[in-house]
Order: sequence, then structure tokens, then C-alpha cells
Amino acid sequence: MSFDRLIQKISEKNNPTVAGLDPKLDYIPDHIKEEAYTKYGKTLEGAAEAIFAFNKGLIDALCDVVPAVKPQSAYYEMYGWQGVRTLAKTIEYAKQKGLFVITDAKRNDIGATMQAYSAAHIGHTDIEGEKIEAFGADALTVNGYLGTDGIKPLLDICKADDKGIFVLVKTSNPSSGELQDKKLDDGQTVYRTMGDMCETWGKDTVTALGYSAVGAVVGATYPEQLGELRKALPHTFFLVPGYGAQGGGAKDVAPSFDKNGKGAIINSSRGIMCAWKKENCDPHEYAQAARREAVRMRDEIVSCIG
Amino acid sequence: MSFDRLIQKISEKNNPTVAGLDPKLDYIPDHIKEEAYTKYGKTLEGAAEAIFAFNKGLIDALCDVVPAVKPQSAYYEMYGWQGVRTLAKTIEYAKQKGLFVITDAKRNDIGATMQAYSAAHIGHTDIEGEKIEAFGADALTVNGYLGTDGIKPLLDICKADDKGIFVLVKTSNPSSGELQDKKLDDGQTVYRTMGDMCETWGKDTVTALGYSAVGAVVGATYPEQLGELRKALPHTFFLVPGYGAQGGGAKDVAPSFDKNGKGAIINSSRGIMCAWKKENCDPHEYAQAARREAVRMRDEIVSCIG
Repeated sequence: MSFDRLIQKISEKNNPTVAGLDPKLDYIPDHIKEEAYTKYGKTLEGAAEAIFAFNKGLIDALCDVVPAVKPQSAYYEMYGWQGVRTLAKTIEYAKQKGLFVITDAKRNDIGATMQAYSAAHIGHTDIEGEKIEAFGADALTVNGYLGTDGIKPLLDICKADDKGIFVLVKTSNPSSGELQDKKLDDGQTVYRTMGDMCETWGKDTVTALGYSAVGAVVGATYPEQLGELRKALPHTFFLVPGYGAQGGGAKDVAPSFDKNGKGAIINSSRGIMCAWKKENCDPHEYAQAARREAVRMRDEIVSCIG
Repeated sequence: MSFDRLIQKISEKNNPTVAGLDPKLDYIPDHIKEEAYTKYGKTLEGAAEAIFAFNKGLIDALCDVVPAVKPQSAYYEMYGWQGVRTLAKTIEYAKQKGLFVITDAKRNDIGATMQAYSAAHIGHTDIEGEKIEAFGADALTVNGYLGTDGIKPLLDICKADDKGIFVLVKTSNPSSGELQDKKLDDGQTVYRTMGDMCETWGKDTVTALGYSAVGAVVGATYPEQLGELRKALPHTFFLVPGYGAQGGGAKDVAPSFDKNGKGAIINSSRGIMCAWKKENCDPHEYAQAARREAVRMRDEIVSCIG
């Protein structure tokens, strides 16, 4: 129930990190792209095929190191429905390899429409009584600007199908404070208010492991707020972007964790996907380079939470 | 530039309304579904084909009455990548028929990722120098919770490619006030603060027609706030959901318009798509029923703005 499956996978691998799969074409070695372009041309389909081949290699190399992957929907939508097909295939392949899959899509809408997004990404679509998984991820990132109506349909699926959501609370980008850091007339910041809403939304789903099905996205680039939120939201599991390429270091993410070193998962996307470029190794060994970086990141973060 | 193309189409048709294309299977007549299921089974592909056939019929019947359509992404994602292919085909077909297409996807993310969403939905994807339209809508709805970083990449495309965005300001759902109506310590509501951000983001893109490329989503279900925002945001074009099935009437949407009766477009989805059910007419005439409802809605709204 809730994030228990994720928490268990983190324990098994002693690794509270998630590999982001945000596959820009620039990140993909030429030999993979050339093979796809030869078959399908320099088209949306060609790009989508190259991305799937790249992802498969990464997943094969990472699946015994990391507990989870986080495909970012934008980098698939960018390649049209063909790219979205690659998203679906990537999710399926990662699940086959035992990984927990978080689709990072930051969906949000009014209740009736959110029901459709919930079914699409973490639930089932009903076609004349046939229940079909459209994308079938384990968890979805969402935006809570619309309030409870936009969260409720997700909770129903979290309870029924053992899934989770991560609500944007304090994001990792430079301008996140423009709205999120503003203070309300009760003296609370907007991000803290959103965080408190996460605790409320999740309260019926807290398990024996201490966390609910409603997690929060809190950026590593704001370690002070990360620490404040960790204390204020004891049942909210954190997804922490911003480590690595965005500037957050291992010390910055340390405040994400509770006193037992649990309660958060740290994302790295570019750092892992582009490790072969940073190492300047043979591009055919991109997946091994990704694995080396994932191991280094794991060890660095585990050492910081002691 | 900006929303000029939309404003022009509204003038030509004397109709400030947009037909929402949120095609639930329940809304589609049996004969269309049966034909698709016979070919493709009760599968994601079967459902996606039925939706495309339904949409084509609607677009054919509506294209000389309404200036624009608004497909809601959730109802396509629900049918997997096959559904997303139907979204792409629907956008293409609507554009061929001269309609302005607003993809209602409420996307949001940090800058680098928002660049990918912008390219996907209103711009071009670069594949080794080839520029390809992935979805190619004219405008996109977005969520501004992340601040300027998440809007800037869209503005670049709005300027370069003559497109527009609609930022969620005050949404139509019952719980929209939970965050949006809260007051900040400067006495402004969150929704008004977001509205002011829209004016700021759009200021370099205001055209001779008076509106910028940065519009706002403001629900018909909150007519008082609609009037307040219309006065406060003189250069922000409004997309107004909530008319019809959600409870907003023609009088409720009247405050959306400026003193010249311009500056807003009113959406109806279920009312138009399900007109055949409400009329209880021959399901084969669903498109004509949709057209009758679109004409009725046009006349009702035009009469209210004088």
C-alpha cells in the first residue's frame, strides 16, 4: 500500500535514489541514433526508437543498483505519439526488470478530468468492461493548484491499486519562489500550505512504515526549506529533484531524510544519462558509465545519511 | 501574433465560444464504437479509433460555426499512446478545417523541461536539424505554480511561431478556492497574484488588438472573480470553462468580456458532445445535434454581451 513497495525496494538495494529518464537526443550515443535513423529516418519515429534503445540499455545496466526510474513525460511528448509510445514501452520494460516507475508528468485538472489522468497513468482504463493499463506507472507527479477535487480521484486509485502520487510543494527551479515562497495572511508560505495539504490528503493512507500515498516534490536546491518541510510533514514521502546537474549536492539532500534515514528518494537524470560524456569513455559503454555514476551517487548519498 | 488569429476567427464567425473535445466513450454513439471494435477489438486502439471517428464528425459539423476547438489531453492519454495518436490526428484535422486549436493539457515544469513541452505542443521538435511539429496546436493551457522559468520557454515559441498560452488563474472546480482564494500577506489573493503575473509575462507581446500571448483560464462558475479579473488584467485574453454542464450560465460568463464584447472565449464540452443524448435524437445525427447546441450557445452568449 502507498509507497511501501518503493520503501522496500530502497531498503533491499540500500539506495534511496531514482534514475531520471529524460532522454534528449543529445544524450544518446551516435551509433544508437544512426541505427534508428537508418530504419525509420530522421523522423519522430526514428527519434522515438533511438530513445527506447537508449533507455533499455540504461535500465539493463541500472536495474540491480537503483530501486526506481522516473521518466519525464515532456521528453517523450516532444517526439509526438511515437515518443509517447516509447514512454509506455519504457515503463513496461522497467517494471519487467523489477523497478518502481514514477511518471513525472505534473498532471492537474478538475475532478472529472483528473479521473481520466489517474486512469491513464496509474490506474486502468475501462473499455466496455475490459480493464486495460494505458501507461501503468507506480506513481505520478501532480500539481495541486486546483485543490482537493484534483487530488481525490488519484487517492481512490492509490488505495485501490497500491499506487502513490507526488504533489509539487517546493520545486527546484530558480523562480520557484515567485509564488511558492510568498507568505499568506496567516504567516505561512504557499509551499508550506501546499505541504500541509499533502499531509491532510494522505492521512487515511499512512501505513505501518509511517508514510502515506501522498508524497511531495521538494527540490534539493533549497536545503533549508527541505529541512523545514521534513520536520513539518512527518508522513509525506519526498521526491527530491535538483541533485547533480541542477546544483544540489549530497549535503544539500541530507535534510530530506527522517531520523532513520528514510522518507525520501533523490533523483538524478542528466548526471546518470550523460555519465559517458563526462567520463569521455567509448560511447558504446554509455550504460556502464551510467551504472558507475549511479553507484557513486548511491555511495555518496548513503554516506551522508549515515 | 499572440491571440490575433483567434480574435479574428471569433470576429468572422461572430462567436466567442470554443467546443471542447473531451471524448469519453460514453459520449460516443454505439454505431461508431461497434465499427471500431469490429476492426480493432475492445482495445486501446479500438477506443482511440472510435474517438477519432466521433471527433471528425463533430469537427465537420462545427467548423463553420465555432472558431476553435479545445481537446482535453487527459481523455486521449486515457487510451494510451493510441489515444495520444488520436489527439495528434484530431489537432491536424481541426487545423485543416480552419479551426484554432487549444490543447488543454495544463503542462508545467522547470525551464529545461518546459522547453520540451513547448516544442511538443505548440512548437517544433528538432531532429538533427529537421524541424517537425509533434502536436502542432495553436495554444496550450499551462499551470504557473513554478513561476517565470516555467513560462519563459513558451513565450519564446509564442513570439517565434505566433502561438498563445492560457495560464490557470481561477479554475472552475468547487475546491479551486482552497489555494487560489487564499490571501497573501499583501492582501492580494493567490489567483489575483497569478493573474498579475500573466500581465507581466505577456507585456512584450501585446498587439494592436490589445491582448498579449499570455491568456488566463478563469472559470465561469465564479462570475464575481471573473469580473474582478477582467478589470484588473486588461491585456490578458480569457479562456472560460465551466459554462453548461459545470453550472455556469450565459449571464455568468458575461463579465468575461471587455467593453467591446471582446477578450474572452467560452468553452462548452459535454453540452456540445452530448447534445444528441439530451435531444434524444437518432444517434446517427449526433453531429447535427452538436451543431444545433453550438448555434444555440453562440446565440445565447452573443445576446448577453450585446
